Amino acid sequence: MSSLHFWFEFASTYSYPAAMRVEARAAAAGTTVVWRPFLLGPIFQDQGWNDSPFNIYPAKGRYMWRDLERLCRKEGLPLRRPSRFPRPSLLAARVACVGAEEPWGPAFVRAVYHANFAEDRDIADPDVVGAILATLGLDAAALAERAQRVEIKARLRASTDEAAALGIFGAPSFVVDGELFWGTDRLDDALAWARGARP
Amino acid sequence: MSSLHFWFEFASTYSYPAAMRVEARAAAAGTTVVWRPFLLGPIFQDQGWNDSPFNIYPAKGRYMWRDLERLCRKEGLPLRRPSRFPRPSLLAARVACVGAEEPWGPAFVRAVYHANFAEDRDIADPDVVGAILATLGLDAAALAERAQRVEIKARLRASTDEAAALGIFGAPSFVVDGELFWGTDRLDDALAWARGARP
Repeated sequence: MSSLHFWFEFASTYSYPAAMRVEARAAAAGTTVVWRPFLLGPIFQDQGWNDSPFNIYPAKGRYMWRDLERLCRKEGLPLRRPSRFPRPSLLAARVACVGAEEPWGPAFVRAVYHANFAEDRDIADPDVVGAILATLGLDAAALAERAQRVEIKARLRASTDEAAALGIFGAPSFVVDGELFWGTDRLDDALAWARGARP
Repeated sequence: MSSLHFWFEFASTYSYPAAMRVEARAAAAGTTVVWRPFLLGPIFQDQGWNDSPFNIYPAKGRYMWRDLERLCRKEGLPLRRPSRFPRPSLLAARVACVGAEEPWGPAFVRAVYHANFAEDRDIADPDVVGAILATLGLDAAALAERAQRVEIKARLRASTDEAAALGIFGAPSFVVDGELFWGTDRLDDALAWARGARP
């Protein structure tokens, strides 16, 4: 049984429903999740974009917000459209790097997505990230300090480089034994791949 | 029960599996398909693209071909990667306009997709389109003549304008009572919408 690598970006809209359900769905399929925070910004820049394609291409953006609304209703997830999109995700992504192998990591990831997409809170604000950590019973000041260390900054950069090398061009993406699946609606296919069902 | 409007472009890769299964899936769901050929070229041009985004963005293109391969295997559809992509689809789309309300229309659409994506035949070639029509037992010469009439040209242009007005930015797209669904993997959602399951 292969593990499911879940590549996510906190600003990414479709990563929100994926992040909220990936752990439970993977557990039901008998596999585990490896949480892989990365930044889409540098990858988009390589494609010549300095903004989300959902902002650059208005028809695509209008459709995405409507589609996300339907998807969240279907999955019973609250959604409040962020008043700023995309929100800078660097700080939260660095904290997620710190938490990637810690027991609190998954809960932190879900709490950040909930703040951004269900509560319209500014996840770029250190106070908001600190409040999320505190709510999880963690030492916000100590973790914020760790998140800004050189080795964490380098780890997030290396992860983003690794994402590009894996062929990742959007989020969420799932990788199982090097096989890439893009989009929240490919989660079941990725889990089938992890179970060895490879058509 | 609302009908399912299926908006397709013959050059579009993901429209291939959608076209092959849409009629059977709609029938199983108790609804009917309205076949809506259109051209993506003018819509892509409005987004600043003079080629398929799968060619403009290589990582996206590499992923798409792999994803399409998995998808076709899963659905038991043959796939041979076209040696030219995207293939000019104007002639085939005009014939599809002629056939849109004829009994042979759906079979023609499927045959064109099969030629392009399972046999690597050049659907831009009038001889290939003629051969497809002949195989269906139709008068190829008469239909080719009809397809080039002013009113058919105008109908295809009007359909493409209508697609843009509906918010369509890619193919395949499904529209049910004005509600837009994009992508072959949204077919079930569109059919649920047609059945009145609207979350």
